Amino acid sequence: MMNPIYYNLPTKIFMEKNCVQNHSEIFPQLGHKAMLVTGRHSAKANGSQNDILAILKKHHIEYTLFDEIDSNPDIEIVYKGARKARAEHVEFIIAIGGGSPMDAGKAIALLARQDIAKADLFTANYTSDVLPMVHIPTTAGTGSEVTQYAILSNPRAQTKTSIATNVLFPNYALLDPSYMLDLPRKITIHTALDALSHLIEASLSKKNNDLNNALSLEGIKAIRPALSVLQKNTPLSEKDRESLSYASLLGGIVIAHAGTNIVHALGYSLTYFRHIDHGRANALLLHRYLEFIEASAPQKIRVILNALELKTLDDFRMLMDSLLNEKENFTLDELKKYSKIALQAKNTSNSIATPNGDTVLQLYKQSLL
Amino acid sequence: MMNPIYYNLPTKIFMEKNCVQNHSEIFPQLGHKAMLVTGRHSAKANGSQNDILAILKKHHIEYTLFDEIDSNPDIEIVYKGARKARAEHVEFIIAIGGGSPMDAGKAIALLARQDIAKADLFTANYTSDVLPMVHIPTTAGTGSEVTQYAILSNPRAQTKTSIATNVLFPNYALLDPSYMLDLPRKITIHTALDALSHLIEASLSKKNNDLNNALSLEGIKAIRPALSVLQKNTPLSEKDRESLSYASLLGGIVIAHAGTNIVHALGYSLTYFRHIDHGRANALLLHRYLEFIEASAPQKIRVILNALELKTLDDFRMLMDSLLNEKENFTLDELKKYSKIALQAKNTSNSIATPNGDTVLQLYKQSLL
Repeated sequence: MMNPIYYNLPTKIFMEKNCVQNHSEIFPQLGHKAMLVTGRHSAKANGSQNDILAILKKHHIEYTLFDEIDSNPDIEIVYKGARKARAEHVEFIIAIGGGSPMDAGKAIALLARQDIAKADLFTANYTSDVLPMVHIPTTAGTGSEVTQYAILSNPRAQTKTSIATNVLFPNYALLDPSYMLDLPRKITIHTALDALSHLIEASLSKKNNDLNNALSLEGIKAIRPALSVLQKNTPLSEKDRESLSYASLLGGIVIAHAGTNIVHALGYSLTYFRHIDHGRANALLLHRYLEFIEASAPQKIRVILNALELKTLDDFRMLMDSLLNEKENFTLDELKKYSKIALQAKNTSNSIATPNGDTVLQLYKQSLL
Repeated sequence: MMNPIYYNLPTKIFMEKNCVQNHSEIFPQLGHKAMLVTGRHSAKANGSQNDILAILKKHHIEYTLFDEIDSNPDIEIVYKGARKARAEHVEFIIAIGGGSPMDAGKAIALLARQDIAKADLFTANYTSDVLPMVHIPTTAGTGSEVTQYAILSNPRAQTKTSIATNVLFPNYALLDPSYMLDLPRKITIHTALDALSHLIEASLSKKNNDLNNALSLEGIKAIRPALSVLQKNTPLSEKDRESLSYASLLGGIVIAHAGTNIVHALGYSLTYFRHIDHGRANALLLHRYLEFIEASAPQKIRVILNALELKTLDDFRMLMDSLLNEKENFTLDELKKYSKIALQAKNTSNSIATPNGDTVLQLYKQSLL
């Protein structure tokens, strides 16, 4: 029999050029005062922040700017944002940027309405009382605009941990691939590989189902031509940017339903301790993870390779290597430490083949030594 | 560039064996008094009504039974249901059955909360104030459990017309394919062909997009093995019932986003005037519709045929003929009358190739004379 199908995607999605302008009627429905949650630079550089400010002005919506979100935001910054949102009587959140501002925006939307102690942030009984949210991705990788996850650096556990609750699905996701036209090549590659990792991990998750799997394969097929362009040093077209956004959106939808698994669990330490970009961290581990799965579920790997128009996992390794360039060095001691942390992560057990402590260390060693 | 992607599927979907029992916690969240909207017989025969009554008892939820929904419900019956819902202070709707009770359930949920004159039913400015709804399909075809449409017989326009508004998405869709195990073969065929028609028409709609198209093709692939079983006289397995439910669900999702088009517009007259089952009516017209589209978009037809594992449209015609058996007779005068009505339907213009009056009559004549 099929796996049960559980499907819940409350976020309203609009993806097209000039998306913010074409759907500006949604903003006045959400309140009279917005908080823009974003990073320090990119939303200003790519035009998205100005587009939003023009819409807010047009609809006489007040706003406050909270543009302090750095990469891999931690607990402190979202509590700071929530205090500001409360003090300024913010009625809804507009999060603009990559995964960091979008995830921070969700946590702020939650903490602006609910009193949750820092120690309980990842495990509290969240109520449905959160500020409404509009999420506007300006990278193509995280898919946060259509998930219920807010992932934050968690010093207590020395890793990144996710707040996972259905109340954190944004109300609206507005995707305009043209915000990504000037995104640097390296960020484009690393975020694209994050999307690829979502699509692959969801398809190899215990919680996967046929509907979700169809969307994973659609996303893998959609991202393939753009990966080929990224392998060469040719510029990306508007169509490539569109394909990457579309694949990232699908990656978000599928992890919303099936979750990530081992690759994300292992990748977090590379980001937490060595500040390696999140998508790159995943990509460093993907090939050996697929080898691990192939041992027990070769047909599932075959389907993924077909969608990527690749013949063998060795072809997959070469694709990753050509996108990752020179790799970082690690010591065995580092990897032993990361292994202990990864085994604590709840998504480790979400893979259709679950690793034990030896396998986790083995995956790290094969991938990184 | 891609078509814009607009995606909105607020219905929470659960599909599995024992679905009603496994998710019974949703019912007390929706209110203290339910109205069961269903037909006279099938929900009693297939066990779904008893399952629901047991759950309501367990959760101390009162109910009133409105089991007067015949095939192709008209305006009068939903106003009657709404009066009863108001009089008995019903707080939510549980619709059980095929498309007729599920669509009637939506209209009752609307009319129980909003005063809408009969003449304005299909065109009113609906507010978001509707009773919450749980939809439980006991056929695999309509997909109504995941759409915003309530289709009713409309004597004024001499056809079936749809109330189409996002407020009519059910809150929950609970699909248990085992309710369909004893469904008669003829109903199984006709409803399956309705699902097939949804999947095909959505993929040939102007409003189609890549995400929707991926789900259409997934549905077409999923329904194919069951259609082969239905061609022979062998019994359907649980797995076949599951595939049909899954394809029907996907058909609902894709028409929620891309709508139906010419086939449904033309089929309604066959049901309205000649009482031909809705799915059968569509299937009688599908082959010639695909020929009409092939003239301007052969690649789209190729993709559909590939998903059906068929080589040519002639193979498609043979597949339909083997499922439809002996066909009804029509006169040219009837078809001329139907053509005029079909040209008024808003979904006629939703096809990627739009027919004029001559083409519509031609489609009818080729299909039915």
